Amino acid sequence: MSTIKRRPGRRPGSADTRGEILAAARKVFAEKGFDKATVRGIAREAQVDPALVHHYFATKEGMFAAAMQLPLSPDRVQAVLLDGPREEIGRRLVTMVLAVTQEPETREPLVALIRSAMTHEQARVMFQEFMTNALLYRVADQLGIPHLRVEAAFAQMFGVVMARHVLRLEPIASAAPEELVELIAPTIQRYLTG
Amino acid sequence: MSTIKRRPGRRPGSADTRGEILAAARKVFAEKGFDKATVRGIAREAQVDPALVHHYFATKEGMFAAAMQLPLSPDRVQAVLLDGPREEIGRRLVTMVLAVTQEPETREPLVALIRSAMTHEQARVMFQEFMTNALLYRVADQLGIPHLRVEAAFAQMFGVVMARHVLRLEPIASAAPEELVELIAPTIQRYLTG
Repeated sequence: MSTIKRRPGRRPGSADTRGEILAAARKVFAEKGFDKATVRGIAREAQVDPALVHHYFATKEGMFAAAMQLPLSPDRVQAVLLDGPREEIGRRLVTMVLAVTQEPETREPLVALIRSAMTHEQARVMFQEFMTNALLYRVADQLGIPHLRVEAAFAQMFGVVMARHVLRLEPIASAAPEELVELIAPTIQRYLTG
Repeated sequence: MSTIKRRPGRRPGSADTRGEILAAARKVFAEKGFDKATVRGIAREAQVDPALVHHYFATKEGMFAAAMQLPLSPDRVQAVLLDGPREEIGRRLVTMVLAVTQEPETREPLVALIRSAMTHEQARVMFQEFMTNALLYRVADQLGIPHLRVEAAFAQMFGVVMARHVLRLEPIASAAPEELVELIAPTIQRYLTG
């Protein structure tokens, strides 16, 4: 049993406490958006101590990624982008995006989030705030480039994933990842370092 | 009144005949997809002579664009791409896509079609067949380049329009068209002629 103090009268931390926090997080993120959601508010919704939320999830970004079952956290994306030669950043990003969207188990939660964002205003706000503030602006600031250039790169990869796995246009849907990396990495490289 | 022979016992061509043909076209395209839909089948659905359908719409592609209220027909897109210096094809395409998606009246029918394609399988098949067979493959064949390169360009522009007008990520949502042309035209140029 957890040593972290629980609120009096609340259920003790069970095997499913993490799942209950994530369910509460999904509800609060959807209602408040990403920016206005707080660890405290999510803890209140889950009826647990905020310290218990912090025990399971180091950051709000990580909690969002876990709640939405995203295949990658913003921290991981940043690590992949920044860990390696800058002149191969386009190749690393395209390779990573194609890899995490290749398998249905990792792709489907991401596609579900995007579908929601494209059809429901609350989900759009949540997605927009998360993508910009938790991921795209951070990458841009770390690379020292305008936010617009990172969003052009995002648009390219978003379009590739949608064309390939949602609209399923051929031949891009069946193209080998290596072929797509050759074709698209120079685009991303130019946006991020050109 | 039209001089084109109508089927016996059917309503005469009225002011709304064109609208009735388009309603029938939407139904048949949704049910059959773009490839399997025929002018004959749409005429049957609208209870008019196929010659009357041809009278209003020269091609199946044109009928689809009109039925879906798309801001551009494939013929028009091809004309813009091929009419002018080849070394400015990227600039022409990006300028055109940004222009037709700038105004809500021309953008919304296109966004509605894309939303449907992303959430309903029948609409997806219809969109996929129309985009590839009526537009992307033709452009690729006329330029003498692999279909995959045109789809990479499509993915870039699709992503830009979605990021700008549907997900509404800033700063790309509010960026001036001229700024986006400068940033993105070289990408399209490389895919289509690189």
